[in-house]
Amino acid sequence: MAETAIQFGILGCAEIARKVARAISLSPNSTLCAIGSRSIEKAERFAANNGFPSSAKIYGNYESVLDDPDVDAVYIPLPTSLHLRWAVLAAEKKKHVLLEKPVALNVAELDRILEACESNGVQFMDGTMWMHHPRTATMRHFLSDTQRFGQLKSAHTCFSFRGDPDFLKNDIRVKPDLDSFGALGDAGWYCIRSILWAADYELPKTVTALHEPTYNEAGVILACGSSLQWEDGKVATFYCSFLANLTMDITAIGTRGSLHLHDFVIPFEETSASFSLSSESGFTELVTGWVPLPSKHVVTTDLPQEACLVREFASLVGSIKEHGSKAEKKWPTISRKTQLVLDAVKASIEKGFEPVEVVS
Amino acid sequence: MAETAIQFGILGCAEIARKVARAISLSPNSTLCAIGSRSIEKAERFAANNGFPSSAKIYGNYESVLDDPDVDAVYIPLPTSLHLRWAVLAAEKKKHVLLEKPVALNVAELDRILEACESNGVQFMDGTMWMHHPRTATMRHFLSDTQRFGQLKSAHTCFSFRGDPDFLKNDIRVKPDLDSFGALGDAGWYCIRSILWAADYELPKTVTALHEPTYNEAGVILACGSSLQWEDGKVATFYCSFLANLTMDITAIGTRGSLHLHDFVIPFEETSASFSLSSESGFTELVTGWVPLPSKHVVTTDLPQEACLVREFASLVGSIKEHGSKAEKKWPTISRKTQLVLDAVKASIEKGFEPVEVVS
Repeated sequence: MAETAIQFGILGCAEIARKVARAISLSPNSTLCAIGSRSIEKAERFAANNGFPSSAKIYGNYESVLDDPDVDAVYIPLPTSLHLRWAVLAAEKKKHVLLEKPVALNVAELDRILEACESNGVQFMDGTMWMHHPRTATMRHFLSDTQRFGQLKSAHTCFSFRGDPDFLKNDIRVKPDLDSFGALGDAGWYCIRSILWAADYELPKTVTALHEPTYNEAGVILACGSSLQWEDGKVATFYCSFLANLTMDITAIGTRGSLHLHDFVIPFEETSASFSLSSESGFTELVTGWVPLPSKHVVTTDLPQEACLVREFASLVGSIKEHGSKAEKKWPTISRKTQLVLDAVKASIEKGFEPVEVVS
Repeated sequence: MAETAIQFGILGCAEIARKVARAISLSPNSTLCAIGSRSIEKAERFAANNGFPSSAKIYGNYESVLDDPDVDAVYIPLPTSLHLRWAVLAAEKKKHVLLEKPVALNVAELDRILEACESNGVQFMDGTMWMHHPRTATMRHFLSDTQRFGQLKSAHTCFSFRGDPDFLKNDIRVKPDLDSFGALGDAGWYCIRSILWAADYELPKTVTALHEPTYNEAGVILACGSSLQWEDGKVATFYCSFLANLTMDITAIGTRGSLHLHDFVIPFEETSASFSLSSESGFTELVTGWVPLPSKHVVTTDLPQEACLVREFASLVGSIKEHGSKAEKKWPTISRKTQLVLDAVKASIEKGFEPVEVVS
């Protein structure tokens, strides 16, 4: 069943766009069609170095990508402060929108983007790659198993990496005018998403940021944490940082089972990924060991997770394009919930670590 | 170099005393000497079932153990509300004190116990077994390595297990008059200790409990969490529960390295235990995998960790007894810091989750 390949344009030459360009090449239902940058030389170099076919269009601005009738969908890895403008314009030009995270400066901005996508009948998806790894679905299956996992009681996630001096001085993620959420919007986005994922997207009732974030001189968050509370007593915590060794954990504890992994954002290896789980864990007589022992599960993947993301996005775009399907609401809904919690964490920090209600 | 075996008496027939009785038998420098229970039949049964030698003394009360001139040291697994009375009396009778955790109802009580031990020249140690596993020293070596681990930035620990209906109804740990700290004093004790251990026993500046603990009908905590904050920006969180699947994690993240283990309180297996660590972790080109991968380390032990505890305690007692050494202050100091943080978490909960200063 051959699908028509979806033609992708990319706005800007961000470092992450190199990975996504490769993913578009690897995915069987997508093609690199166009690249736009404020500098046409930069665009040319990017295309030459990142596997664009000779037929690809090279533009010295972003608008031309959106005006290109061959382009079905755009990947937008621009700084967060530019998302509103370019994602809305893309939707208005009937381009499907694959938007890098954090998706917006706040949920009000995101709502304008999502409204533009909906009213123009285009698919929206954010660039959270790990959601699309087949491991994620396998783990979700365990978390949904009321016998083996039971009800979620607690989750803890963290994502930290140690930015080098150049990163901490020059990266867009430490610039207040470009990515004002700092580590919270970058690493914290993944933490929040993974907690929501573990909670099957049930929004927490309140969010209480942890004392005290670390800021850079410009007031951008370099490290912070938060707790999340649900009506039923579930609690979660996360920690995100640009200042600590690379770590990316999910711990989800249910009444009957537990899940652990240590590479949820970027799997240790590209073609297989593992997690460990335990269920109905108990002790030996005299409490000198565990029965049963936790088990390790390996999930292999034919495509890297970012290519799985592109494949899923392109498949939804293809359904709209070929069959007149409606856009899939699952992805914008998940993005919006993540943004809501992100906003609440920021609000809690600004309110002196008071609990902030998460209002949908 | 043969040491004189230290003669142990045990106060009460708690379930945990079975494990410690075995540990006293296994440790090369200790002997089971006496058992006291309010019921002499219970004491007789306990001695018969737990490897006491035929020479062991069986008493129908606790006082007689303390009055027995053959007894060098006592293990006290009584409910926390009885610790003050019996630990002080033991010290006054010149018995060295191995005290089950949580050591006291508050630090003021603990100080009275510690003063009694100090003024009577007896050794104090609490029953936190995992501290004595050789794995713990190996991990501490990594955490102290400024090149491989760097400075601690964040720690998260959790200890949960699912109490069965009988436990949740009848165990001393859910009774307000016996162990008023509930899950915080039991599972939470380990979490707090492990965070302090990871921070090399530097006390946090403040402690802020997480919203909202779960209580039983009598008002005893069944699940709760807290964050801890240090002057230098370090943060830690923990979660403890009687209501979730058995889980016992330490995650410690430094500037240059990370440590993970999932069985810190009770190793999965008795004779060997592992942990994983990563150092200077980074990504492959295009961020599609990790370089280097984390490494797993296995530490074997000739004795189970609880026998290592007894061996260490008995060795300190032996030095005092044979050579007139002073009691080792390290252990009471660590117990006291743990109790200080425990008290602060409880105070924060009682103050509506406000930050509480930890004052030494």
